[in-house]
Amino acid sequence: MKVLIMNGPNLNMLGKRDSSVYGDQSYDDLCNVLTNFCETAGIDCELFHSNHEGDLVDRIQRLDFDAVVINPGALTHYSYSLRDALEIFSGPKIEVHISNISAREAFRNKSVISPVCTGTIAGLGIKGYILAIEYLVLKSR
Amino acid sequence: MKVLIMNGPNLNMLGKRDSSVYGDQSYDDLCNVLTNFCETAGIDCELFHSNHEGDLVDRIQRLDFDAVVINPGALTHYSYSLRDALEIFSGPKIEVHISNISAREAFRNKSVISPVCTGTIAGLGIKGYILAIEYLVLKSR
Amino acid sequence: MKVLIMNGPNLNMLGKRDSSVYGDQSYDDLCNVLTNFCETAGIDCELFHSNHEGDLVDRIQRLDFDAVVINPGALTHYSYSLRDALEIFSGPKIEVHISNISAREAFRNKSVISPVCTGTIAGLGIKGYILAIEYLVLKSR
Amino acid sequence: MKVLIMNGPNLNMLGKRDSSVYGDQSYDDLCNVLTNFCETAGIDCELFHSNHEGDLVDRIQRLDFDAVVINPGALTHYSYSLRDALEIFSGPKIEVHISNISAREAFRNKSVISPVCTGTIAGLGIKGYILAIEYLVLKSR
Amino acid sequence: MKVLIMNGPNLNMLGKRDSSVYGDQSYDDLCNVLTNFCETAGIDCELFHSNHEGDLVDRIQRLDFDAVVINPGALTHYSYSLRDALEIFSGPKIEVHISNISAREAFRNKSVISPVCTGTIAGLGIKGYILAIEYLVLKSR
Amino acid sequence: MKVLIMNGPNLNMLGKRDSSVYGDQSYDDLCNVLTNFCETAGIDCELFHSNHEGDLVDRIQRLDFDAVVINPGALTHYSYSLRDALEIFSGPKIEVHISNISAREAFRNKSVISPVCTGTIAGLGIKGYILAIEYLVLKSR
Amino acid sequence: MKVLIMNGPNLNMLGKRDSSVYGDQSYDDLCNVLTNFCETAGIDCELFHSNHEGDLVDRIQRLDFDAVVINPGALTHYSYSLRDALEIFSGPKIEVHISNISAREAFRNKSVISPVCTGTIAGLGIKGYILAIEYLVLKSR
Amino acid sequence: MKVLIMNGPNLNMLGKRDSSVYGDQSYDDLCNVLTNFCETAGIDCELFHSNHEGDLVDRIQRLDFDAVVINPGALTHYSYSLRDALEIFSGPKIEVHISNISAREAFRNKSVISPVCTGTIAGLGIKGYILAIEYLVLKSR
Amino acid sequence: MKVLIMNGPNLNMLGKRDSSVYGDQSYDDLCNVLTNFCETAGIDCELFHSNHEGDLVDRIQRLDFDAVVINPGALTHYSYSLRDALEIFSGPKIEVHISNISAREAFRNKSVISPVCTGTIAGLGIKGYILAIEYLVLKSR
Amino acid sequence: MKVLIMNGPNLNMLGKRDSSVYGDQSYDDLCNVLTNFCETAGIDCELFHSNHEGDLVDRIQRLDFDAVVINPGALTHYSYSLRDALEIFSGPKIEVHISNISAREAFRNKSVISPVCTGTIAGLGIKGYILAIEYLVLKSR
Amino acid sequence: MKVLIMNGPNLNMLGKRDSSVYGDQSYDDLCNVLTNFCETAGIDCELFHSNHEGDLVDRIQRLDFDAVVINPGALTHYSYSLRDALEIFSGPKIEVHISNISAREAFRNKSVISPVCTGTIAGLGIKGYILAIEYLVLKSR
Amino acid sequence: MKVLIMNGPNLNMLGKRDSSVYGDQSYDDLCNVLTNFCETAGIDCELFHSNHEGDLVDRIQRLDFDAVVINPGALTHYSYSLRDALEIFSGPKIEVHISNISAREAFRNKSVISPVCTGTIAGLGIKGYILAIEYLVLKSR
Repeated sequence: MKVLIMNGPNLNMLGKRDSSVYGDQSYDDLCNVLTNFCETAGIDCELFHSNHEGDLVDRIQRLDFDAVVINPGALTHYSYSLRDALEIFSGPKIEVHISNISAREAFRNKSVISPVCTGTIAGLGIKGYILAIEYLVLKSR
Repeated sequence: MKVLIMNGPNLNMLGKRDSSVYGDQSYDDLCNVLTNFCETAGIDCELFHSNHEGDLVDRIQRLDFDAVVINPGALTHYSYSLRDALEIFSGPKIEVHISNISAREAFRNKSVISPVCTGTIAGLGIKGYILAIEYLVLKSR
Repeated sequence: MKVLIMNGPNLNMLGKRDSSVYGDQSYDDLCNVLTNFCETAGIDCELFHSNHEGDLVDRIQRLDFDAVVINPGALTHYSYSLRDALEIFSGPKIEVHISNISAREAFRNKSVISPVCTGTIAGLGIKGYILAIEYLVLKSR
Repeated sequence: MKVLIMNGPNLNMLGKRDSSVYGDQSYDDLCNVLTNFCETAGIDCELFHSNHEGDLVDRIQRLDFDAVVINPGALTHYSYSLRDALEIFSGPKIEVHISNISAREAFRNKSVISPVCTGTIAGLGIKGYILAIEYLVLKSR
Repeated sequence: MKVLIMNGPNLNMLGKRDSSVYGDQSYDDLCNVLTNFCETAGIDCELFHSNHEGDLVDRIQRLDFDAVVINPGALTHYSYSLRDALEIFSGPKIEVHISNISAREAFRNKSVISPVCTGTIAGLGIKGYILAIEYLVLKSR
Repeated sequence: MKVLIMNGPNLNMLGKRDSSVYGDQSYDDLCNVLTNFCETAGIDCELFHSNHEGDLVDRIQRLDFDAVVINPGALTHYSYSLRDALEIFSGPKIEVHISNISAREAFRNKSVISPVCTGTIAGLGIKGYILAIEYLVLKSR
Repeated sequence: MKVLIMNGPNLNMLGKRDSSVYGDQSYDDLCNVLTNFCETAGIDCELFHSNHEGDLVDRIQRLDFDAVVINPGALTHYSYSLRDALEIFSGPKIEVHISNISAREAFRNKSVISPVCTGTIAGLGIKGYILAIEYLVLKSR
Repeated sequence: MKVLIMNGPNLNMLGKRDSSVYGDQSYDDLCNVLTNFCETAGIDCELFHSNHEGDLVDRIQRLDFDAVVINPGALTHYSYSLRDALEIFSGPKIEVHISNISAREAFRNKSVISPVCTGTIAGLGIKGYILAIEYLVLKSR
Repeated sequence: MKVLIMNGPNLNMLGKRDSSVYGDQSYDDLCNVLTNFCETAGIDCELFHSNHEGDLVDRIQRLDFDAVVINPGALTHYSYSLRDALEIFSGPKIEVHISNISAREAFRNKSVISPVCTGTIAGLGIKGYILAIEYLVLKSR
Repeated sequence: MKVLIMNGPNLNMLGKRDSSVYGDQSYDDLCNVLTNFCETAGIDCELFHSNHEGDLVDRIQRLDFDAVVINPGALTHYSYSLRDALEIFSGPKIEVHISNISAREAFRNKSVISPVCTGTIAGLGIKGYILAIEYLVLKSR
Repeated sequence: MKVLIMNGPNLNMLGKRDSSVYGDQSYDDLCNVLTNFCETAGIDCELFHSNHEGDLVDRIQRLDFDAVVINPGALTHYSYSLRDALEIFSGPKIEVHISNISAREAFRNKSVISPVCTGTIAGLGIKGYILAIEYLVLKSR
Repeated sequence: MKVLIMNGPNLNMLGKRDSSVYGDQSYDDLCNVLTNFCETAGIDCELFHSNHEGDLVDRIQRLDFDAVVINPGALTHYSYSLRDALEIFSGPKIEVHISNISAREAFRNKSVISPVCTGTIAGLGIKGYILAIEYLVLKSR
């Protein structure tokens, strides 16, 4: 199983953003954790980050993976382009948010991405990515 | 670690509700899966269900657990009493939804419970409960 | 044919509420009228009242009837739990309101129950219950 | 007792509209059913249909009847002129809808006619007209 | 100067509508008052009433008058067709309402006609028509 | 009959404001026109202007007049204090606007004053004041 | 192929309305252009205009054509009756607007007709009708 | 005079909730304070708490008291059932809130209970209950 | 303890306003009642009334008191200036309303003042002022 | 005449997206159809696609064409940057949508692009592009 | 060049308001800073403060200055009277806010004054006034 | 001090956009003015423009400057990605708009960027950039 783990705008700044919201680990830390976890789980993962909506859409359109774990960053709240791209992919799609977006500014309460995903995991820190991958493993059994 | 796994109105009807939305497993199946999983993980779990908002609030107020995994059912969308009860508990609180509530009727898009929880897992079927418990395990390490 | 005739919060106070809105008959009067009418029509009816949302949900979940006539009282306007319970029952469900809820306070204009019912009868006094039962009779012929 | 049974725009197309919503019977079938029912019940009924709001208003203004049973069709949702005409008539006015308008498109959820009617029957198919007449009979006793 | 005095739906029922809102005079009384007043003022007036939006639009499109005094009745609140017809006429257009539409139901607070008229007179009873004609006289001097 | 003719904020600037909206006449011109008209009509009028909401309220509270003609200026759109003061006076109250406030910025479409007035005249220039006084004369006959 | 080309309220006034919005051609010009174009294209067309919603609904209900090209005029924004009539017809339905209704008053931004049409052409002047017919030709090949 | 002092969901947790909002005193402290105060004032008081909406409605329906002092907790914001129960009681009804609900989350700004109460006291801590009883004493003199 | 008892626009008209809403006592009666009550309670009170928002703000800015009891009249609903002035004062601030503003016109349901006050007492007639002062006494002990 | 035919995000996935909405033809098919059509019509066309908003804006800013035919994809609903770029170009701009965006999800009902375009063609499949070019040809004659 | 520097309600309390929002300097400090700066820049400035909307309007109406720098305080959010007064003045008008009103309470996000000003400077502390004057100097060169 | 002066989509088209809104100067003119001004002021400035949201985010994330002056162009109204990037930078951030965005289309009235900036300067033409830099100079002294 190949999993695309995609991170959107500003997630590469983990560790440099407000740690009370996003925790202390850096984006590199996140990558290492996920790479190790996938290796152990026998999953082929690709980590992809971009601050460019178009790059994320281009990448998804290649459709060369079995599942997506995506944290769209702030694009969550307005990128109908990203939504449309994800909608074309028919496999499992898990939306992950590090913080509890329901408990923050009003504009963060709405995800335009959720309705086309299989499900959402929010507020559980970077463990949310791990759980998303666990789900894919459980489901594929 | 003692975990209260709480299910709200109509979740006892699993298996009798629209299976395209909620899957085929019954509430008993869910209970068995979770009991076994917790046993294996060395977690002391209590399964609690009620169709009565007041019962759920009463149970939470006992505060005799270390974490809550809660699927509030339709109370998700209007029970500020349940919200207030959960807010009083300061430990980890994971909100779980079997279906992807973002992809259903408009009234299901809003949770009044989310802002007082640690995080939310939605749309991943009854595996969502498993992942919630996994989170508690990961976090407690 | 077994019909569950269910009344929600405060309908037991008929006769003690504003008679210009609800008429002069008491809840007992209502019960007598309906019992007699059903007897004559050869229908097995059960009258059920509760001020507790959970009791109404519990009762519906028994699913031991062929049709429901329900006046949810004020729960009409917010009880998504009741709505979910009714949705599980696949037989005929008639929502009845004694008063014309469209001609009263704004909050009474919206029913969260209607979308899952077969139909609605409002504003025709306690005759509305009779008509609902007539409908079930007509339909069953 | 003389009853005006009024049908608004497109109700003459019954049987040619989506039968999953409106049933299989034609407007002529409806007329026959109602004429027979009224004859049996000893009621003098007049069936009136028009696609023209002005015709419906003109007809109501003659005020030569004891009660109205009206299905305003799509005018339900915007015809304040029809509402004003009905408001002038002080006798019983029953609004009927064949389909459950609460379970369809959002614009059909609101009736500008309901607040000036005695009551509403919706979602019970053409039986709704029969029940409306039954109500008038019950009430006149 | 020729003035078209146009009345929309249900204004022909004056005297039969709620007199606390619309006063006691009938539509014929109104016509007599206005005819006499115009005669005295040396104005050529035509009184036109219809319950049909299309008739009102047809009449306006003849454009054979110097000014319009219009009480659109309930069409005030939704008839964009009437609005478009009035917009084509470039002369003075006075909108009149017998009752104070700002002090009644919410739907009566908004006029879709006002923005294309010269001005509006509301709440002054049938004297409002007289004042509208006076304005035309004052303006034409 | 004593009439208080009251003008609110910025109406003293007539002639210095956009003449396409408010016409060319100055506030002094308006005062002269109204004084002359009242004199001829045998009406005792007092012209009162202030840019201070409190002054307008103070003046109304003296209640030493038989009728009010008021152009509240921009206070029209938010002064609930002025509304309350006017509500206390039980005699005829005519709200006048020089411009057609329905055809201007959205915030000018709503008057918080209208619901407590007898009626409103808008868009007829300074002739609107004359018509308001004519109404008082007609009514007093 | 028989095409019904239907025009709603005030479109017969083309050439008399604001030419910066609607162009200089009259309704007769439009009719001539379309008649000629259809003749050349071998299409049997009927031009139908009315200012009466009811007439438009009556005409559509005859269902004696293969396609409709309709410019509903201001009815676009509120005529659910027209919408329902069009919905009954299952062939191609093209909504045409001469002006760009998205760039005008807010109330013109919403069409209640569009959701039941095949498609919409707006802002391309009377050429929009030609393109609609071209579409029908292309589609029928 | 018999006074029912009723507390809704989670008020039994006073002292365990955020003390910056609700103060330090426990529910038992509150009960003692009120019991003593009533004794001194010669008032017969009953303290009633429940987390169950239905229990509160059941209790009110007994109508065996002269006045109610009620803090509905979070039910304040959605319990139309409680509102209807209170509306049936015609004596004095005082709504009390310990915290200033206008200065907290948006959902707490609206009370569905207030419109059927005599009045409201909010933000004055548990002293608010005392003042409510004082009001009843003052009023009964 | 010095208490500023401040009344806003139109409260000086007590006794001349609708007595079913505001009671029969005049502003002078209110002043006498409060002066006597404060004297008895050993409180130094100053009664201040103005119809001018600016006067109220000026008076508050002197900050020469220990507590404020304020009935802002209609300014309650829009005076952010008054709100800002009150916010600067850090002592206890009690907002009082004679009528139950939740049970009246929609615009009276919202107070822009409440969020910066300690608490609010509404609907308890002029006794509300007495209770506010009692609160200050209780609190100061 | 040089025409820029621009397609936004995900339109390159034609043929891989839901064919009940977008039809069966691929983006290459679309390109071929349009290239051939333009060649025949003697039009110099450039086909441009990007998933990047910035690329679309960059391309438009070159202003080296006589007309634009643009299908902005999901950017239709939020890209004010694209809107501003199009606004700078003063020649004909035709917005094309393959599907009937009025009959889909609510967020697709609003185009932020339409107000700055000459006109819009929606719901006519890839024939919409052909018609847009036809319009340019008709107009240029 | 004569510049009117106008401050609205509560700005005289600078230094006594929350210093984390408004800084530590007093209103006198502000006046000194601005007087000195203007003197150096060769500008004739008048500092005007009032808590009375009417006073601000009166002052502006004198129109005896070349430019206005105005901080309307809380009137920013509702004073359409002040807006109208400013609109009459045709010279440069700069709106200044000490705090970043976009980052505070929702009601502070909207200025009814901005649309009639030349421009706005917000969030830059009392330096905002200096920059406003600099703008006037730059512009006048 | 190093200042990043960042311009978003379409600002490179200055001089080619509507000069009544944006003035006559080109983007090159702007660059020259700012470069010269900074040189004189002893500030190290970098001018950065892109039509790509992602480029702007990438550039900000380098965090190699002491302050930002940013005109986000149309991204102002929807780019939460840009907002998040700016929020990470803790130094002074000044948002500049050439035109008065409060006096234009409704969608331009809201900035999603403002709440994370130090302050905003709008409507003062390209002088707004100069003032922003002046502020940085004043602040750094």
